[in-house]
Amino acid sequence: MTVLLTGIGELVTNDPAADDLLGLVEDAALVVDGRQVAWVGRAADAPAADELVDLGGRAVLPGFVDSHSHLVFAGDRAQEFAARMSGTPYAAGGIRTTVAATRAATDEQLTSHVARLVEEMRRQGTTTVEIKSGYGLTVHDEARALAVARQFTEETTFLGAHVVPAEHADDPAAYVDLVTGPMLEAAAPHARWIDAFCERGAFDADQARAVLLAGEAAGLRGRLHANQLGPGPGVRLAAELGLAAVDHCTYLEDADVDALRDSGTIATLLPGVEFSTRQPYPSGRRLIDAGVRVALASDCNPGSCFTSSVPFCIALAVREMGMTPAEAVHAATYRGAEALDRHDVGALVPGRRADLVVLDAPSHVHLAYRPGVPLVAQTWVAGRAL
Amino acid sequence: MTVLLTGIGELVTNDPAADDLLGLVEDAALVVDGRQVAWVGRAADAPAADELVDLGGRAVLPGFVDSHSHLVFAGDRAQEFAARMSGTPYAAGGIRTTVAATRAATDEQLTSHVARLVEEMRRQGTTTVEIKSGYGLTVHDEARALAVARQFTEETTFLGAHVVPAEHADDPAAYVDLVTGPMLEAAAPHARWIDAFCERGAFDADQARAVLLAGEAAGLRGRLHANQLGPGPGVRLAAELGLAAVDHCTYLEDADVDALRDSGTIATLLPGVEFSTRQPYPSGRRLIDAGVRVALASDCNPGSCFTSSVPFCIALAVREMGMTPAEAVHAATYRGAEALDRHDVGALVPGRRADLVVLDAPSHVHLAYRPGVPLVAQTWVAGRAL
Repeated sequence: MTVLLTGIGELVTNDPAADDLLGLVEDAALVVDGRQVAWVGRAADAPAADELVDLGGRAVLPGFVDSHSHLVFAGDRAQEFAARMSGTPYAAGGIRTTVAATRAATDEQLTSHVARLVEEMRRQGTTTVEIKSGYGLTVHDEARALAVARQFTEETTFLGAHVVPAEHADDPAAYVDLVTGPMLEAAAPHARWIDAFCERGAFDADQARAVLLAGEAAGLRGRLHANQLGPGPGVRLAAELGLAAVDHCTYLEDADVDALRDSGTIATLLPGVEFSTRQPYPSGRRLIDAGVRVALASDCNPGSCFTSSVPFCIALAVREMGMTPAEAVHAATYRGAEALDRHDVGALVPGRRADLVVLDAPSHVHLAYRPGVPLVAQTWVAGRAL
Repeated sequence: MTVLLTGIGELVTNDPAADDLLGLVEDAALVVDGRQVAWVGRAADAPAADELVDLGGRAVLPGFVDSHSHLVFAGDRAQEFAARMSGTPYAAGGIRTTVAATRAATDEQLTSHVARLVEEMRRQGTTTVEIKSGYGLTVHDEARALAVARQFTEETTFLGAHVVPAEHADDPAAYVDLVTGPMLEAAAPHARWIDAFCERGAFDADQARAVLLAGEAAGLRGRLHANQLGPGPGVRLAAELGLAAVDHCTYLEDADVDALRDSGTIATLLPGVEFSTRQPYPSGRRLIDAGVRVALASDCNPGSCFTSSVPFCIALAVREMGMTPAEAVHAATYRGAEALDRHDVGALVPGRRADLVVLDAPSHVHLAYRPGVPLVAQTWVAGRAL
């Protein structure tokens, strides 16, 4: 069964062999064969197919790959948000509020909540999403969170080292032993990745290193939260360990930028967080100009950033982080896939999964030119329109 | 025919008699009778009705009143936007690009374009929208733009004094004579308001005053674009003439703020413009603290701000202009209605039109807490769900 999508005003292929960053094709067409892209090119050259869909000049992009989210939680922190907007600064400790609510929720409550957020993301064009644990922080609750997340994505991340929970506040070292021991053992069957929050108020570099190395020994690949709230050793640790990605990267020294460039570790920027915490934005421009690969993700979570909208993050990247519309779109698709070490999504070239977004707009530029407007007309996953 | 909306987790009434700004009612219900609100209160006290709709804990707000938009145009300025994001500053002269495209468009093209944008606004919760002319700038094209706009709203505004068109560049005084003479005569039957862009590069205070007074003599009420790109005399002119509203107000001196407070003229802030032009934001906080009434609107237009999303403007008002979520919601509903001198919309109290928004969220705070997420689940206009 093949489907020919034609009448594509602008097709973003992200073809790495193209001369331009996005591998743009105008007046384009695309053939889906089953779950995959079979052909892309000019509409005038398109082969025949079993079915034809005319998109009337709309733009088509690869589906967004959101490589950083925390969807398994319960409770609402709207009041904390409102207080923050009146001047109370964001602190990592607020995570504990969500931990208490998450532990108290039933499996069914957590599952239906994640389902609702994943559906909300799909409507906004996200076709691959990474989901972290990190609001359970007991052996049982972390494994449970990952089992819930696994129902929705292959990209599950064990984040027992999100924050030291209140009951271990007096002995963080014992908590790290728990994370790297029994908690990791319970979590590993449900997870592909391991992550830690390397930040003042959360875990220091030695603790984060211990967590990542234990995870690696258990077959999980590492990623890291670092340099969000201030300068610190996290980004260099990520580069040293050759992690796929290090996320936030708000406060960077030149040595951090050099380490990212030399290691090839992707810097995943999460501008929704800076929007929602009134922190200064990281500079995407500085990183890209230095030769660092930059991804964009939502960081959807109830505390520091409750947006699920990758289009919104693209608009912020252009307004606030010096990125061009093309760079921002590339960062939210191709680089997002790289940040998850995925080579089957993030581009619309033959052989990749037919995950795509149809915009109610003629060009990818409109994602930044029309901020806040729900422009996603259709989302296709594995060759099927949702 | 009466409809009882119940299961409202939080109802924003904007009742001016309430103790709090938004007149919030929790666990609320609302009865629609025909086109109007007939009753609001606690769900436990609700009267019977012909039909019942259970909203399952969702929040209900008055529909957004977007008192400033420029929807009648043709052409796309996405490339100008992209260039601006690479450092080219915004200038009023860019309006001429849209003027050329608009003059070249057919009536049908203009009408279908406005229809598409109004529908897009409706899906985002806007139930009253003001639409300006200002991209025609000939007698024929201004009247035509207003006739198109009139098909969609009662709130049409004649903005012949948007910018001096290229063919009159050598003699702006002659253009003002045209605007206040034959153009006004042709436009007035289709318009409720008259507006001018009082700014360096557009019209000075004497020219703006002449336009507004001529409009008033023709039965149109005045409003003004002022102090967008720098300090200037526009805001004080608006206050002196007792206009309903003066819009932008980005660069204000203390005397401007005092004049607004003393005159009661509403300051309509348009933060989507500052987002999309990388200008500094106006301070909503300063104005509200000084006792000025502040409205929020989209300014949807193809040049300086192509968002149609009032929820996005609310999120910006909270992030960037020091407004609380409650103040921002009030500014986009109750104050928007005041800015259009409308007393039949903007609040959900008995006798007002049943224009309302149902959010996929438990509280109005989520409009700022969840930026960029399309939270509008339903929009009702005059008692009917769209």
